[in-house]
Amino acid sequence: MSGTKYVYDFEEGNKEMKYLLGGKGANLAEMTNMGLPVPHGFTVTCEACNAYRAAGRTFPEGMLDEVAEHLSSLESKMGRKLGDPADLLQMFGKTVMGVDGDHFEEAIDEAKNAKGVRNDVDLDDGDLRALVDQFKKIIVSQTGREFPLEPVEQLRQGIEAVFGSWDNKRAIDYRRKNKISDDLGTAVNVQSMVFGNKGDDSGTGVAFTRNPANGDPHPYGDYLPNAQGEDVVAGIRNTLALDQMGEVQPQAWSELQEDMQKLERHYRDMCDIEFTVEQGKLWLLQTRVGKRTAFAEWIMAYDMQDEGLIDVGTALLRLDADRLEELFKKVIASGGEPIATGLNASPGAAVGKAVFAADDAEAWARRGEPVILVRRETTPDDYHGMIRSQGILTSAGGTNSHAAVVARGEGIPAVCGADAIRVDRPGKRFTVGSTTVAEGDWVTIDGFTGKVYAGKLELADSPIERARSGDPEARREKIWQAYERFMTHADEVRRLKVRANADTPQQAANALERGAEGIGLCRTEHMFLGEERVAAVRTMIFASTAEEEQAAYDVLAPLQREDFIGIFKEMDGKPVTVRLLDPPLHEFLPDQVDLAVAVALAEQAGQDEVEVSGERIPLADASDMLAKVNDLHEVNPMLGLRGLRLGIVKPGLYAMQVRAIVEAACKVKRDGGNPIVEIMIPLAATREELAQLREELEPVAEQVIADAGIDLHVSWGTMIELPRAALVAGEIAEVAEFFSFGTNDLTQTTFGFSRDDIGKFLGMYEERKLVPANPFVTIDRPGVGRLMKIACEEGRAGREDLHLGICGEHGGDPDSVRFCHEIGLDYVSCSPFRVPTARLAAGQSAIGDASSSSK
Amino acid sequence: MSGTKYVYDFEEGNKEMKYLLGGKGANLAEMTNMGLPVPHGFTVTCEACNAYRAAGRTFPEGMLDEVAEHLSSLESKMGRKLGDPADLLQMFGKTVMGVDGDHFEEAIDEAKNAKGVRNDVDLDDGDLRALVDQFKKIIVSQTGREFPLEPVEQLRQGIEAVFGSWDNKRAIDYRRKNKISDDLGTAVNVQSMVFGNKGDDSGTGVAFTRNPANGDPHPYGDYLPNAQGEDVVAGIRNTLALDQMGEVQPQAWSELQEDMQKLERHYRDMCDIEFTVEQGKLWLLQTRVGKRTAFAEWIMAYDMQDEGLIDVGTALLRLDADRLEELFKKVIASGGEPIATGLNASPGAAVGKAVFAADDAEAWARRGEPVILVRRETTPDDYHGMIRSQGILTSAGGTNSHAAVVARGEGIPAVCGADAIRVDRPGKRFTVGSTTVAEGDWVTIDGFTGKVYAGKLELADSPIERARSGDPEARREKIWQAYERFMTHADEVRRLKVRANADTPQQAANALERGAEGIGLCRTEHMFLGEERVAAVRTMIFASTAEEEQAAYDVLAPLQREDFIGIFKEMDGKPVTVRLLDPPLHEFLPDQVDLAVAVALAEQAGQDEVEVSGERIPLADASDMLAKVNDLHEVNPMLGLRGLRLGIVKPGLYAMQVRAIVEAACKVKRDGGNPIVEIMIPLAATREELAQLREELEPVAEQVIADAGIDLHVSWGTMIELPRAALVAGEIAEVAEFFSFGTNDLTQTTFGFSRDDIGKFLGMYEERKLVPANPFVTIDRPGVGRLMKIACEEGRAGREDLHLGICGEHGGDPDSVRFCHEIGLDYVSCSPFRVPTARLAAGQSAIGDASSSSK
Repeated sequence: MSGTKYVYDFEEGNKEMKYLLGGKGANLAEMTNMGLPVPHGFTVTCEACNAYRAAGRTFPEGMLDEVAEHLSSLESKMGRKLGDPADLLQMFGKTVMGVDGDHFEEAIDEAKNAKGVRNDVDLDDGDLRALVDQFKKIIVSQTGREFPLEPVEQLRQGIEAVFGSWDNKRAIDYRRKNKISDDLGTAVNVQSMVFGNKGDDSGTGVAFTRNPANGDPHPYGDYLPNAQGEDVVAGIRNTLALDQMGEVQPQAWSELQEDMQKLERHYRDMCDIEFTVEQGKLWLLQTRVGKRTAFAEWIMAYDMQDEGLIDVGTALLRLDADRLEELFKKVIASGGEPIATGLNASPGAAVGKAVFAADDAEAWARRGEPVILVRRETTPDDYHGMIRSQGILTSAGGTNSHAAVVARGEGIPAVCGADAIRVDRPGKRFTVGSTTVAEGDWVTIDGFTGKVYAGKLELADSPIERARSGDPEARREKIWQAYERFMTHADEVRRLKVRANADTPQQAANALERGAEGIGLCRTEHMFLGEERVAAVRTMIFASTAEEEQAAYDVLAPLQREDFIGIFKEMDGKPVTVRLLDPPLHEFLPDQVDLAVAVALAEQAGQDEVEVSGERIPLADASDMLAKVNDLHEVNPMLGLRGLRLGIVKPGLYAMQVRAIVEAACKVKRDGGNPIVEIMIPLAATREELAQLREELEPVAEQVIADAGIDLHVSWGTMIELPRAALVAGEIAEVAEFFSFGTNDLTQTTFGFSRDDIGKFLGMYEERKLVPANPFVTIDRPGVGRLMKIACEEGRAGREDLHLGICGEHGGDPDSVRFCHEIGLDYVSCSPFRVPTARLAAGQSAIGDASSSSK
Repeated sequence: MSGTKYVYDFEEGNKEMKYLLGGKGANLAEMTNMGLPVPHGFTVTCEACNAYRAAGRTFPEGMLDEVAEHLSSLESKMGRKLGDPADLLQMFGKTVMGVDGDHFEEAIDEAKNAKGVRNDVDLDDGDLRALVDQFKKIIVSQTGREFPLEPVEQLRQGIEAVFGSWDNKRAIDYRRKNKISDDLGTAVNVQSMVFGNKGDDSGTGVAFTRNPANGDPHPYGDYLPNAQGEDVVAGIRNTLALDQMGEVQPQAWSELQEDMQKLERHYRDMCDIEFTVEQGKLWLLQTRVGKRTAFAEWIMAYDMQDEGLIDVGTALLRLDADRLEELFKKVIASGGEPIATGLNASPGAAVGKAVFAADDAEAWARRGEPVILVRRETTPDDYHGMIRSQGILTSAGGTNSHAAVVARGEGIPAVCGADAIRVDRPGKRFTVGSTTVAEGDWVTIDGFTGKVYAGKLELADSPIERARSGDPEARREKIWQAYERFMTHADEVRRLKVRANADTPQQAANALERGAEGIGLCRTEHMFLGEERVAAVRTMIFASTAEEEQAAYDVLAPLQREDFIGIFKEMDGKPVTVRLLDPPLHEFLPDQVDLAVAVALAEQAGQDEVEVSGERIPLADASDMLAKVNDLHEVNPMLGLRGLRLGIVKPGLYAMQVRAIVEAACKVKRDGGNPIVEIMIPLAATREELAQLREELEPVAEQVIADAGIDLHVSWGTMIELPRAALVAGEIAEVAEFFSFGTNDLTQTTFGFSRDDIGKFLGMYEERKLVPANPFVTIDRPGVGRLMKIACEEGRAGREDLHLGICGEHGGDPDSVRFCHEIGLDYVSCSPFRVPTARLAAGQSAIGDASSSSK
């Protein structure tokens, strides 16, 4: 016998033991020990599951003996035996033996049609017995195996099915999306059965201690008289609102309210409860801290802090920074006439083209079409299509149906149970009365109100967006007050500054509005584009003498100076990190293939003009241009002549940019502004590159400052975006006053992944978990992160006051922000849109580990 | 006053002080203290030079006072004053004041022509006085400055010129080529003048204690009666062979022979001496351990060991592994009729097109033309062209002329002083009698014999190559015996194994011949090329069904199996690391631009066939192919779908290769062979990639082995060629039995340098020292090397018996081999040609630091 204990009675556990007992088992144990009415039972541990998986699907030694012991003790406690004929075959066949649920549903529908009734409860004992026989036949025909009659064998198969489910595609998809490790394994709970289908004094339901959709501090849920739990959760039959339960079960309802209060005080959070009433007696079958919309999350955190249930730090850590953007979700601008109304299952308004199958949703979305997935109900098999839809609309199912739960979890607007709608799945359309909406037709849904509209309605800004624009009504709303409170608190406690990546005055203004404290990355690429500039850029590229090249710079310099003046004015008193030109020069020339084809065709046809980028030019010029394009062509431009390598090969280029930047800053300062100038030289691999460029460029800046007679300080730094730069950061810091981690490029070179090309296999990589997560979204800690850590430590050792930031897209990813906090960066910089997310994540990082987003 | 001592009398130093006194100063001090006849003098230290450079060309405080003190002490010792009118103006104007030497030469030539004489010595005192006046005029006209008349000022300017010379282009080029740090600085030696031009009882010469060209253990050099030293070194005038000196200066000759013996015993190495005889009295002006050809290096090490001067380890460390390849240099196969004979200044035969200027040599060589640089004499300004020439031919100058010294140092064949040749530099041609060789005409030179041939002669293998092929005559030669002795010793002491990169049985045979102990990298790319295979490869790429794809594999598998059988047979009993397919698939398809142009032209012309890769195919097929090429096109293929990513996306591909490899090994084993199979999966970035591929591929191998009923072990490993792989090596080692460092790719990603594109700026990068050395030649220790070290340490921590090797081109670079030894690799693998170099370098690494190649 192994010494490991694989089976725990509910009395033996508590809610902290979720890694051993699983979330459900741990909470059942907690409730049991709180004295709540939980049916007796026991848990087979996650450890058993992992041992089973590690041993190639073989139960660990002794586990089955333990199960048998606990089973017999359970039977004696409850006075019942597993395997009583009343247990339902359908569930077993479906979940344990892998039979498609539709087969059972069709049998039930046939039975109901034959009898002319609408609901399952309208079937009598005889009907059900006939159904049982039919179900057994379905099982044999679908699986080739008999339904097992021996209860211990049923249990063994059941445990095996649950353990196996850990590795099915749906579970893996879910874990991937939610960043849950594969190594946790799953536990199995064996609980004695209680029956909600013993008549009108019985029933089953799902209750939330607060409204998970909008955060209202009142119980919320569904109750279904004379039914078993699966019926509610699966959304198969329509339900009563929870507060109507008092009318039919006043005693159980009062007990349930009391138990909900107990649970909420105990968990200090909103709880989600499954319960059954068996002949008037309330049983709690399961609880957990309930999922909620981002909107509800903020409202609940705000209310619970006011109620004294939690302090402000706890409240802040409850907020999922990853979902903050949901608060900014659009709403419907103008009413329109709804064609149907369902339940407001997940907030947000959505517009898309109707599709009727998850695979279609996925396919349409992949080619860029916004879709609304319309189904009678959804099942876990639809998950891949749901997460790619703008919105979800179902004709059946309550607020706790699969569709509603997934939509809320994913932040996808959803309307469920819109039962006026008839979904014709094979015909790929739905009808409401005389209105027909076919595949590809526009639909609008409002997840805040439950309304469904045919056509494409105009959407408008969220209350937060409106409040921010000064709308007094929006400013009175609780969500705005919660937003103000928690963002202010996050700003107070965070150590990381938050900057934005912004290239224009307009983007800078957006960033400021969202709370940015500077610009961490002002790219100058766009300053080389535009009709009046492109000619000069081409002159620069084609120049054969220093004079020709300088003439091009003379055209570009004043234009760029004006660009910088706008940005420095907008960011008055806040640092602006300007990156000198980074992309390879061929990006400013026509595409090689297009040009080669155009020239060849003109030559063959004997034409003397060629159309290049929409302009007709002489063939000879086009040929010259092709020669230059061929000359500049690079096999791997990402690893080619770009960044400071350009600055070295074309010294006038960076000098021109530095002159424009510093002249702009001097002008703004002369006009009474306070520009804070940081010049960033991209793509350093060695200390010498930076040292030599600074030697060339600093005198340029100094001359401009001296000529202007202005007192202006310019900081000089570099991007750390190549592995070597991180590895020799100590040296590089000798010649850089600041580092900014360019984690996009650093991820490319560290993994050897080209972002331009990885689309061909990143999907498969994520699916097969060949990468821990998409490394272009979340910093890969063991690889890229380790390089960053080395660079921080050794850079600071080389220069004590080295300023450290990040300007890759990771700067707006909460998990990456936490990492930046951990390694001691001074700031993160992200897109203006993500600034609030970064502020919140930075605040959470400062408070401590938020269990929700730590890995 | 600063506390630092900047000036040392020769009595105060010794030969170990070369970092302070410079090599020349340290050796002058050593000789002085050995009691050899050295004119008195002192040394201004390298430290003074560095202080001068650091302070922006200002002498450190106190230095000039120290110089003045030592100068006055020197004057009193020698009874002479600096600034005596006998000192020569030409040298000063040229080296101190920066006047082009040609101006002085022209003046001398004019004087000689006017007088109708050929040699400088034929000019009398009056001629010389007239020349002095003319030189002064030249100096004023060229520099705008008067020649300084005050000796201390002359000295100050002299020191300044030497310090400044450290940063001129020639010095920087030389240091770059020879991996000498810029930070050493240079010392200045001030030595009292002795005069070799005081008549026939005076003279000057350069002596080697052994022959630096062929290693003969006899004194060797040049002597020039009635002349100053610079005349010999510059090769301006033809010289006497050293052993003829006894005829004119028997006493001095006998003393010189004695001193040479002393020096050689003292230095335990061949010494190179500059000496002057002043009215019968021998003065040694300078000595150093002499430069020699690679050939001489081996002969001398062999002889000196036999003479008991050094032990075998010291002898081995004397060998420059970087130059080992010179022993394999070609010789002229068939005699031909020489048009001229000069001195055999640097060994090896060379064939090339005649060019007449260093810039031309560089330009022609850059476009791939082999050139022979033909000059009357060379100067340091010609260095850049000399190092790019196949061979060097001069019409003037002895075996110690600039041309000869540089050519020997660089391992370039050279014939010097072929005085029958008249070089017409402006006319870009030379003549010998009636023969004219113009720019671009073929010339052959034999640096072993000094012979010069018009035309392109056939070259043949070196004695080592012939000995290795069993030629009994070659096997009796000392060079072969030295080679055998030292390579055997290197093999005995080295810890690193040496393998070769070989893709075919022929390459494997070559590698074995050169002492390879296995194949460290067998690329399989070529197994997808060739007429009968390319169709199958394209079928594989275009396959839309698994069946089509499999059909392609069924064609390829037996062909690849035959390839592997050949290799395993050849490498019987030695490990063969086979790398599964690495390059992106589009490499097996036509070029995108060519195909796009061809299709567009055919469409415009209304043709229904297109020529693709030399084959006419229907336009529709070409269009389909273009679509596929566009689909497979990658912006950065280096970072794209290649390596194991291909294996993941096309699972049948690697399975086919594994099957072919293992079937081949089983076949060879069944036939009595002993194949040792290592399968290498390229381009891992994560542990999971490798884990999943092994899970797929190992069963394939096991099945083949089981089917064959053969007992065969297969090792599985990966290349570490991405920074992330190095950073997570501990994890990767859990699923890899061996690592092979792919340092080519690792260098590309660590630096962000694409080898395909870097040509556009690597030259400038090396020139400006923006990279420490070419990182594709020598492992960049701070960046790439650090990643390798991390991977070794953490890989071994993850798997104790992890086998470690390198298969990048660095595996044949001596400095990189040393690094591999230091970090504890098990083997290096390099091209078959470089195997002896790697064996020698590995042996040297095991013995200890060889001062010659350590950095």
